Amino acid sequence: MRYLTAGESHGPQLTMIVEGLPSRLPFSKEEVDKQLARRQKGHGRGRRMQIESDQVQIVSGVRFGQTTGAPLSMIIENKDWKKWTEIMSIHPDEEKATKRRVSRPRPGHADLNGAIKYGHRDMRDVLERSSARETAARTAVGAVARQVLEFCGIRVAGHVVRIGSVGTRRLEGWTAEAIAEQSEQSPVRCLDPEAEKAMMQLIDQAKEEGDSLGGVVEVVVENVPIGLGSHVHWDRKLDARLAQAMVSINAFKGVEIGIGFEAGERKGSQVHDEILWAEEKGFHRASNRLGGFEGGMTNGEPIVVRGVMKPIPTLYKPLRSVDIDTKEPFEASIERSDSCAVPAASVVAENVIAWEVAQALLDTFTADTAEDLLREVNRRREEARHF
Amino acid sequence: MRYLTAGESHGPQLTMIVEGLPSRLPFSKEEVDKQLARRQKGHGRGRRMQIESDQVQIVSGVRFGQTTGAPLSMIIENKDWKKWTEIMSIHPDEEKATKRRVSRPRPGHADLNGAIKYGHRDMRDVLERSSARETAARTAVGAVARQVLEFCGIRVAGHVVRIGSVGTRRLEGWTAEAIAEQSEQSPVRCLDPEAEKAMMQLIDQAKEEGDSLGGVVEVVVENVPIGLGSHVHWDRKLDARLAQAMVSINAFKGVEIGIGFEAGERKGSQVHDEILWAEEKGFHRASNRLGGFEGGMTNGEPIVVRGVMKPIPTLYKPLRSVDIDTKEPFEASIERSDSCAVPAASVVAENVIAWEVAQALLDTFTADTAEDLLREVNRRREEARHF
Amino acid sequence: MRYLTAGESHGPQLTMIVEGLPSRLPFSKEEVDKQLARRQKGHGRGRRMQIESDQVQIVSGVRFGQTTGAPLSMIIENKDWKKWTEIMSIHPDEEKATKRRVSRPRPGHADLNGAIKYGHRDMRDVLERSSARETAARTAVGAVARQVLEFCGIRVAGHVVRIGSVGTRRLEGWTAEAIAEQSEQSPVRCLDPEAEKAMMQLIDQAKEEGDSLGGVVEVVVENVPIGLGSHVHWDRKLDARLAQAMVSINAFKGVEIGIGFEAGERKGSQVHDEILWAEEKGFHRASNRLGGFEGGMTNGEPIVVRGVMKPIPTLYKPLRSVDIDTKEPFEASIERSDSCAVPAASVVAENVIAWEVAQALLDTFTADTAEDLLREVNRRREEARHF
Amino acid sequence: MRYLTAGESHGPQLTMIVEGLPSRLPFSKEEVDKQLARRQKGHGRGRRMQIESDQVQIVSGVRFGQTTGAPLSMIIENKDWKKWTEIMSIHPDEEKATKRRVSRPRPGHADLNGAIKYGHRDMRDVLERSSARETAARTAVGAVARQVLEFCGIRVAGHVVRIGSVGTRRLEGWTAEAIAEQSEQSPVRCLDPEAEKAMMQLIDQAKEEGDSLGGVVEVVVENVPIGLGSHVHWDRKLDARLAQAMVSINAFKGVEIGIGFEAGERKGSQVHDEILWAEEKGFHRASNRLGGFEGGMTNGEPIVVRGVMKPIPTLYKPLRSVDIDTKEPFEASIERSDSCAVPAASVVAENVIAWEVAQALLDTFTADTAEDLLREVNRRREEARHF
Repeated sequence: MRYLTAGESHGPQLTMIVEGLPSRLPFSKEEVDKQLARRQKGHGRGRRMQIESDQVQIVSGVRFGQTTGAPLSMIIENKDWKKWTEIMSIHPDEEKATKRRVSRPRPGHADLNGAIKYGHRDMRDVLERSSARETAARTAVGAVARQVLEFCGIRVAGHVVRIGSVGTRRLEGWTAEAIAEQSEQSPVRCLDPEAEKAMMQLIDQAKEEGDSLGGVVEVVVENVPIGLGSHVHWDRKLDARLAQAMVSINAFKGVEIGIGFEAGERKGSQVHDEILWAEEKGFHRASNRLGGFEGGMTNGEPIVVRGVMKPIPTLYKPLRSVDIDTKEPFEASIERSDSCAVPAASVVAENVIAWEVAQALLDTFTADTAEDLLREVNRRREEARHF
Repeated sequence: MRYLTAGESHGPQLTMIVEGLPSRLPFSKEEVDKQLARRQKGHGRGRRMQIESDQVQIVSGVRFGQTTGAPLSMIIENKDWKKWTEIMSIHPDEEKATKRRVSRPRPGHADLNGAIKYGHRDMRDVLERSSARETAARTAVGAVARQVLEFCGIRVAGHVVRIGSVGTRRLEGWTAEAIAEQSEQSPVRCLDPEAEKAMMQLIDQAKEEGDSLGGVVEVVVENVPIGLGSHVHWDRKLDARLAQAMVSINAFKGVEIGIGFEAGERKGSQVHDEILWAEEKGFHRASNRLGGFEGGMTNGEPIVVRGVMKPIPTLYKPLRSVDIDTKEPFEASIERSDSCAVPAASVVAENVIAWEVAQALLDTFTADTAEDLLREVNRRREEARHF
Repeated sequence: MRYLTAGESHGPQLTMIVEGLPSRLPFSKEEVDKQLARRQKGHGRGRRMQIESDQVQIVSGVRFGQTTGAPLSMIIENKDWKKWTEIMSIHPDEEKATKRRVSRPRPGHADLNGAIKYGHRDMRDVLERSSARETAARTAVGAVARQVLEFCGIRVAGHVVRIGSVGTRRLEGWTAEAIAEQSEQSPVRCLDPEAEKAMMQLIDQAKEEGDSLGGVVEVVVENVPIGLGSHVHWDRKLDARLAQAMVSINAFKGVEIGIGFEAGERKGSQVHDEILWAEEKGFHRASNRLGGFEGGMTNGEPIVVRGVMKPIPTLYKPLRSVDIDTKEPFEASIERSDSCAVPAASVVAENVIAWEVAQALLDTFTADTAEDLLREVNRRREEARHF
Repeated sequence: MRYLTAGESHGPQLTMIVEGLPSRLPFSKEEVDKQLARRQKGHGRGRRMQIESDQVQIVSGVRFGQTTGAPLSMIIENKDWKKWTEIMSIHPDEEKATKRRVSRPRPGHADLNGAIKYGHRDMRDVLERSSARETAARTAVGAVARQVLEFCGIRVAGHVVRIGSVGTRRLEGWTAEAIAEQSEQSPVRCLDPEAEKAMMQLIDQAKEEGDSLGGVVEVVVENVPIGLGSHVHWDRKLDARLAQAMVSINAFKGVEIGIGFEAGERKGSQVHDEILWAEEKGFHRASNRLGGFEGGMTNGEPIVVRGVMKPIPTLYKPLRSVDIDTKEPFEASIERSDSCAVPAASVVAENVIAWEVAQALLDTFTADTAEDLLREVNRRREEARHF
């Protein structure tokens, strides 16, 4: 399974093609829209998010409520495209091409290095694609993968564990279902009511100060069969692929599996998960500090992966920069922005991780049809239980 | 450029093939051996490391001190192979196959989930490959890539920033050369003399207690041209590839770019790197909190990436586990082990990161010959300087 | 550079994403439309071709007449989609799903094996995607790649060398430009006026008989720099990639490079191309029997590659088949069809081959910008001339 | 499943790594040696072949007669390496590097274009890798894949259908077993005794004349499950992958599936395979002109694929060429050579095709263990029978 996305922030549409899905998978466009809607909510978002209300069009690969096995393609229209037809025109136009040219790179964005790489003197040719608008495309693609997971009884949930200086304690004993339900109630997708309150205050304060906030999100994937990924070659380790996926989300700067960086501080006796066995469950663990992975393979415990998002670089509070034409310094001031996009990013992260897990499923098991896949996943579960 | 590694911990040899190198690259087998030797040192290693003293044989791809462009293959012999010929025999042998069968999975290893995935009742068929012995192969491969980097004036250095509860402060103003020199002097590859002392004490103490320690390593890559990786599609972001590479190292559980997880705690105004310009240097930054990346592309500042290693799971201090045949619980006690492999892991990390950066170079520039590559890298540097 | 296509024959649209183009490439939507129009012409096409008159919409990746480096996405609307909205609905609908279900597999199509693989009882779920309609998508994608080639002075031309029993003699001394011009004048894209006449008669006759005809097309690529592809590893040989590309075209059953199968009949002294040298041209060849390749690499002579297309399997003349529900035999009669699609297939082949050559260019040379690419291609040409 | 090969014709060894095999596959080193031995036989081979008698060493991935799932690595030593240690030294040595430098490119080889691409003035740096010696590596790799096929009851056989001007008629009614047995008896691997005799005479005559001969080989794969490959995206079509594999063999210039190029000459009613059904067999075909593929997927009929090999370019009969240093013309005379390597190439082709089919199996079905794979392949067979 693979995908490509295309589309600029102010172009006519985002376009996504997902190739390699099993056939006969019950497929719901509404589920994709639901994920897109979840991505647009959250305390601390600016106005653009409300305008958008993304909806997907399915333009291939689905018939009568099921995938056919053919590439599934999707479109999300950009609602404000009509205002941008001149600036984003595909046709040569010397005059327009110089009008409103972007020559002032913003720190923390791809503007400057992208312009140098691609030889652009108008940095709009970079920023239109490097924009976080692209996370809508990835959310939609992940929402497709998620339907593969759900068909196999695998549940994905995400929540926010830090915004700026406010962090929460590590979870214990929460099911993915409970996480999903509880985080959905929270404007900052936080499970801890006290932290939630503090986070919201922090966001309001940052907004007032014209500053922005990052944070940390956690994604949990439950009921994953044993043996996705492989220890036999480094690039088949699934935890490492999750790491790539997480860091590839716009503005993400780090990732950890299970207790992650804390594992560097603890002693060995406090890190590993003891192995237990019981007649009805087979092998299982006394704890899940390793976040569901040993040797780069799933071990049957829930996958737990966290990613850190830096504060949004588009700031009311200006940073120094330099115009690429005049070489004059200026202060990068931005007209409008979100002050905190971490709750939304937690939805993106869920769906980005869902993709990787679904892809590992399809790589591991017979998956020409959804029935093939479910049968084989269940067989693996049985084999593990009786190992 | 791509590579495959093969080989078991107690098999006859490790085998590596690197395909896609430029031709006419000055190549030194000694440089590879040097990296292998560096990997075998460090306070806290057990005895096996001394026995090994790995050396590489180059069995293709190099002639008269230069690469030819053909696949470069390498062999590292396992010195104690002769003691293992029976247990590791490739020939069918019912009797031997049952003798010394490993039926007791160690927590924190691939033993159990690997056995379930691959249907093995003798977990030696898993652990021989999941062993950290494989990091010698990846070090050798990275040491090849490093010669590509060095030819282009790109320097890689690594050091240890945490062992267990002892961390160091963030670096400022160190060149890669200084880091390399200083860390080489330290038995724990630590740049901070005070922390170094505390780390060594901690290791000695853990050893005494039969416990083990993890930690955090940092890799710095200096003089990287602008525009490796790309913002245009998620899987072309180089920082995300570094994340995959880092987490794929045995026992690594997390990764961060630049200030990483700290970016989730700071306000936006304290995270991004202001853009400056000067006649002689062109565009540059007032700081490097983002670790050399914006939009998944290098921005000309040094790459800074950190990885966290969990404590080695083979413990003198036993953990509970269950025999896969009898289903009887037992306490996993291990005969010998390192108590801390973080200094060695820092060498592995350097070379693993070197590979990814070199690959990005070859992907980006004409690279049939090393001269082609160098010329193009220098051209990019010039273009950036005069942008 | 990579691409994905999506879309069913009677769905709303074909969708294509091309990822990895250089930036700043002069790009013309009209050139894509031109290739699409060329694909729809040719003596022997049925009526559907006239209805369609495909046009592409560019929905990302191009701004003010140039590529930006971001993924280029394209849409081709299916003109008759409105008649198919019910049968091709994405929404579950028990009743419609059983109405007009296709249970009769056509010999020579993917209907039956596709249905078995993907578990479909309605073979429309196979045939909508296996339809040659998809070649419009690949033509559009190739027409994008072709603009890369043209920017580098590389010319692609195609023509028909056989239809059914009528073949032409091997070309000598034609430039790609002459081939392109002359074949464009011919209703069967044949350069030989006598053969052309015979081919048209054969097609008319087959039509009358309710039979169909295949044939052989030849693609020539001129002014290709030396050293695309590589001898160092089998999967980097460019001639072999061209072979995959050609055979992957719907209904293609074989491919040959240069004199191809004739090389199996000749003696060695009659096959290889002698090497000459002249001050102004550098190294060149006395002949081009090997079709521009030695060791899987381009050698500077024109690439010559031929592909064979089987006759269209949708026939007025019925073939025996069996209903998958009733297991009753029936005679597969098809309502409408082209009797010969070889001239059109020759256009598809041109564009499919153009893609592979362009991809090899981008793999070989610095190609962040089109200027980078052109400079490097010209440098290689100079180096070769003075080698 | 993937592999890399390394090694020069006169280097110490060929090295192969195969990654992605299922575990618990019964594995025989002898079977690999058998394929290597078969590759070295055949009327028309020169003396070097007798000297070699290749044998493989398995240096990882196999234990007690079964694969473990870890990368399988293999070595084939070059017997005459000791004579070449100076000329092939990896160490810098100005003097040796100029001694016996190859400055005279042979037509029909990669010598000249490889030298231009890789900047070599000593063409030994090209020819050592472009040598057909590499086909030993690919044969060994294919011989591993073949054991996957055999475990699943899939049989591969090859034979020679043309040498120079002597061709055979198309096969009918031969099983793979019969082909394998009969071709093994023939010094030219030909099934037709009359053609065999004529081929041998032709070879002897060519030898006398100092000329060389090419030919055409056919590979048949029997008992392949339905649905390997896919129609849904061009690069998943298995027939096209076979085409790439075949053309990638040294000296191969074309490939055809089923009746191949003949399909371009016949009418549609004479090309497609009618669909039949019977209680005990399920769906099957009245003929197999399409060589086991429709829509790029296997259809249950035997795979039939042919490849054409050009005559060996190393000739006693000299061809004109030009020295790259002096630019003086010379006549390329070669000291020793095979006059016809087609029978050997037929063995290479078998194993190269075996790889692709095995890879498609592993891609399609659960394949962590060999038992998983066999169970799933048999399930598909059952499903097809009862479709």
